[in-house]
Amino acid sequence: MVDQRSVDLNADVGESFGRWELGDDDALLHLVTSANVACGFHAGDPATLVATCSTAAERGVAVGAQVGYADLGGFGRRFIDMAPEELYADVLYQLGALDGIARSHGTAVSYVKPHGALYNAVVHHEEQAAAVVRAVAAYDPALPLLGLPGSVLLAAAAGRGLRTVREAFADRAYTPAGTLVSRREPGAVIHDPDVVAERVVRMVTVGEVEAVDGSVVTLEVDSVCVHGDSPGAVTIARAVRERLDAAGVTVRAFTGG
Amino acid sequence: MVDQRSVDLNADVGESFGRWELGDDDALLHLVTSANVACGFHAGDPATLVATCSTAAERGVAVGAQVGYADLGGFGRRFIDMAPEELYADVLYQLGALDGIARSHGTAVSYVKPHGALYNAVVHHEEQAAAVVRAVAAYDPALPLLGLPGSVLLAAAAGRGLRTVREAFADRAYTPAGTLVSRREPGAVIHDPDVVAERVVRMVTVGEVEAVDGSVVTLEVDSVCVHGDSPGAVTIARAVRERLDAAGVTVRAFTGG
Amino acid sequence: MVDQRSVDLNADVGESFGRWELGDDDALLHLVTSANVACGFHAGDPATLVATCSTAAERGVAVGAQVGYADLGGFGRRFIDMAPEELYADVLYQLGALDGIARSHGTAVSYVKPHGALYNAVVHHEEQAAAVVRAVAAYDPALPLLGLPGSVLLAAAAGRGLRTVREAFADRAYTPAGTLVSRREPGAVIHDPDVVAERVVRMVTVGEVEAVDGSVVTLEVDSVCVHGDSPGAVTIARAVRERLDAAGVTVRAFTGG
Amino acid sequence: MVDQRSVDLNADVGESFGRWELGDDDALLHLVTSANVACGFHAGDPATLVATCSTAAERGVAVGAQVGYADLGGFGRRFIDMAPEELYADVLYQLGALDGIARSHGTAVSYVKPHGALYNAVVHHEEQAAAVVRAVAAYDPALPLLGLPGSVLLAAAAGRGLRTVREAFADRAYTPAGTLVSRREPGAVIHDPDVVAERVVRMVTVGEVEAVDGSVVTLEVDSVCVHGDSPGAVTIARAVRERLDAAGVTVRAFTGG
Repeated sequence: MVDQRSVDLNADVGESFGRWELGDDDALLHLVTSANVACGFHAGDPATLVATCSTAAERGVAVGAQVGYADLGGFGRRFIDMAPEELYADVLYQLGALDGIARSHGTAVSYVKPHGALYNAVVHHEEQAAAVVRAVAAYDPALPLLGLPGSVLLAAAAGRGLRTVREAFADRAYTPAGTLVSRREPGAVIHDPDVVAERVVRMVTVGEVEAVDGSVVTLEVDSVCVHGDSPGAVTIARAVRERLDAAGVTVRAFTGG
Repeated sequence: MVDQRSVDLNADVGESFGRWELGDDDALLHLVTSANVACGFHAGDPATLVATCSTAAERGVAVGAQVGYADLGGFGRRFIDMAPEELYADVLYQLGALDGIARSHGTAVSYVKPHGALYNAVVHHEEQAAAVVRAVAAYDPALPLLGLPGSVLLAAAAGRGLRTVREAFADRAYTPAGTLVSRREPGAVIHDPDVVAERVVRMVTVGEVEAVDGSVVTLEVDSVCVHGDSPGAVTIARAVRERLDAAGVTVRAFTGG
Repeated sequence: MVDQRSVDLNADVGESFGRWELGDDDALLHLVTSANVACGFHAGDPATLVATCSTAAERGVAVGAQVGYADLGGFGRRFIDMAPEELYADVLYQLGALDGIARSHGTAVSYVKPHGALYNAVVHHEEQAAAVVRAVAAYDPALPLLGLPGSVLLAAAAGRGLRTVREAFADRAYTPAGTLVSRREPGAVIHDPDVVAERVVRMVTVGEVEAVDGSVVTLEVDSVCVHGDSPGAVTIARAVRERLDAAGVTVRAFTGG
Repeated sequence: MVDQRSVDLNADVGESFGRWELGDDDALLHLVTSANVACGFHAGDPATLVATCSTAAERGVAVGAQVGYADLGGFGRRFIDMAPEELYADVLYQLGALDGIARSHGTAVSYVKPHGALYNAVVHHEEQAAAVVRAVAAYDPALPLLGLPGSVLLAAAAGRGLRTVREAFADRAYTPAGTLVSRREPGAVIHDPDVVAERVVRMVTVGEVEAVDGSVVTLEVDSVCVHGDSPGAVTIARAVRERLDAAGVTVRAFTGG
């Protein structure tokens, strides 16, 4: 039994683009402690990033760079077989772009989280994971990397001396092996806010989650991701936040912000 | 008579994009003291920016952010009637992106120069000029702005307390009023390297240039722009550099780098 | 008095892009007779265009190519000072792209309407208007052009022998001169569905509209534009459609489809 | 022995983009009989496509749509793991866009060839190959598909009743199994124009090519691809053309144009 007394809540924000709005960032930035802000390659035009960083700064929410593939049409959800040196440069570019905006608006990038297909790729893709880590280390070796426990990304980051932050997903089903059930499988996403909130409390305070087959899986969690762009996202985030508060868990940014 | 003993030479570099190469950056970075590096919106993919900043760092050439309109298809040469707050955000984004790459590769952005249609717009467009100035001031008020003497941009920058750097063009014809002859007019661009070099020496050491009508115009010049992407560009840059050396003018970055 | 017994209703559709949804196309395609489908440059990824053309074909709604500036970030609402030959090529490209999709899905492009800033530009910009007309004529001289009565666009189209379709705006206020009140002025957009519907019936059956100063302006209208992407858009479109039906006006595509 | 008396020569053209020029299209369009014209997604802005189609029309060179992934920064050379319905729509969009330009300038798209990473993917990727075939069949089932003999693409096309055109590569080394030696291997590309030309004559007239291990491989060839964007590309294309002429082989488009 873990009896963890604090945890971070993170969500994706800043994913509007020009005329197109996505997600209720204003509501989410009242509930989470870490904001994964898009950096313009998969979503997030510069004016959106200015607005998002300004709000995060006002609310004291930590800003993370959610770096992704350069693929607006696919929202960064399609794997791109990029050369490592190209990915390295793309990540560095995104990091600096968001950080410049953040620093000009009362905050700064304080961690990095890959987005979408890049997040999934660096669970196992050695070269792309190494490229992401190399970019973060080149930019600022004090920046933590947020990722899936057991991923190649976190191993590579740790190997390079970067701080790693282990993430769990509030509304996703887990396999008995502790990995996520593919979205293509039935039951991969849990929609009931009460069930989701209860699972998060158990993950955080007891360090375990019930897998799809009913078995119990051990998890170590530094940050819990709540989704931002689905209908009901805010309701779920609010339920998670309230249940954690009620359980006596302090919700605060892992960056210590 | 000015008898100026030093001047800066600047050129546009980093304007390749993916498979497409443009300009002989390697040669130019041996000749100029300030490199206007594209920031990805009109040209310059991230991997190109990494390579360009690395070479500039090695050679001790100052890196400037050449910010432009988001228009790859038009190479930033088409005026876009953007709202000031959008332009502000776009400039900030580009500045941070290039600076992040520069800082990770042994140098840093040390000045800002608008590109193409934006350069021309901010000669007279009050709102866009103010937006550019506001972005630079928000990012780092110690960054100088390079622009056309007499432009609204330099006036706005000075009004905000930013350092301004006055630029002359090596290969462009001047009107009797001291502005550039439009490229649509015959004789707007001078192609003879000897003539160009001689004009630059006169601009720098005497503070004057012969206008298209034969009259003499007074100019104050902190930096001279040599073009990078035309055939013969390197030949002209080399002639200018050699003639300045021969005239005893020290060619060095205005940033003091 | 006109006593016009039929009119066309048009609306913008197909303006989603990848992950980002915009407008209630399904509802609108039950109400209008002509669909201005985005062509990918300001909005509308190819998969969205396939879905939109398929639905329009099923419902018997005429498909128009809503060509725009290549500016996803600005949603085509920012004027771009393009050379006419570039605009010509961009319009031709968009036209063919949408028509190929339409023809593969049971319909075809049957008219052209410029979008956003291009729509406004070609009211007065001779060169850009001529470029649009030239592209339509090159592609298919049987395609009508939809635009503002009195615009340079419609004059140029008529001069080239193209059919022109005069458009009125359901929810926009008119000046005494019969032009639209700028969106920057108070009262430029009318939000009350009943008022809007009543105005449309008067435009169509009597050929007049009350201007902002209370004076009465004469209008000849072939098609009425209802907006698609604002809250309340569908409610307004439905009110207009119902009131026209009640007034005995046949709502049908001007293309005769 | 084949003793084939005619063959097609194809090359990639139209791959410039805005300010960036690539390849000597003018020279190539004097030498080849089929032009694989980029369609704007990996290269080829609309104005370039207009110019390229116009020249091809003048010279009587067949125009093919070289469809690719939407990836300007990667020049379509990076595999993108797209959903089939997205790829279907992207191919259809590109096909219509180029065909509209071609038809407005005296010619028409008469075949389809995937580009770069898409070309390589559809050698083995069942879903992406099926999506390309489905798009071509939806657009015009009379359009042939050009591809690698033995590829999943050509099998799927044939299965759908489309005409298939088997392609060989003039300057690429072959494995004993008749596939291409990977570009990552030494000797993958042959640079000597005489050697290349000799190999092409043997491919076409005898139906065989010497593999890297010295063994002889049987090939059936409808079209030979000469590369366009490398230094020496035109020299090689000219050598191939001259040697075929000298060998009495008629070089003509497989489309019969």
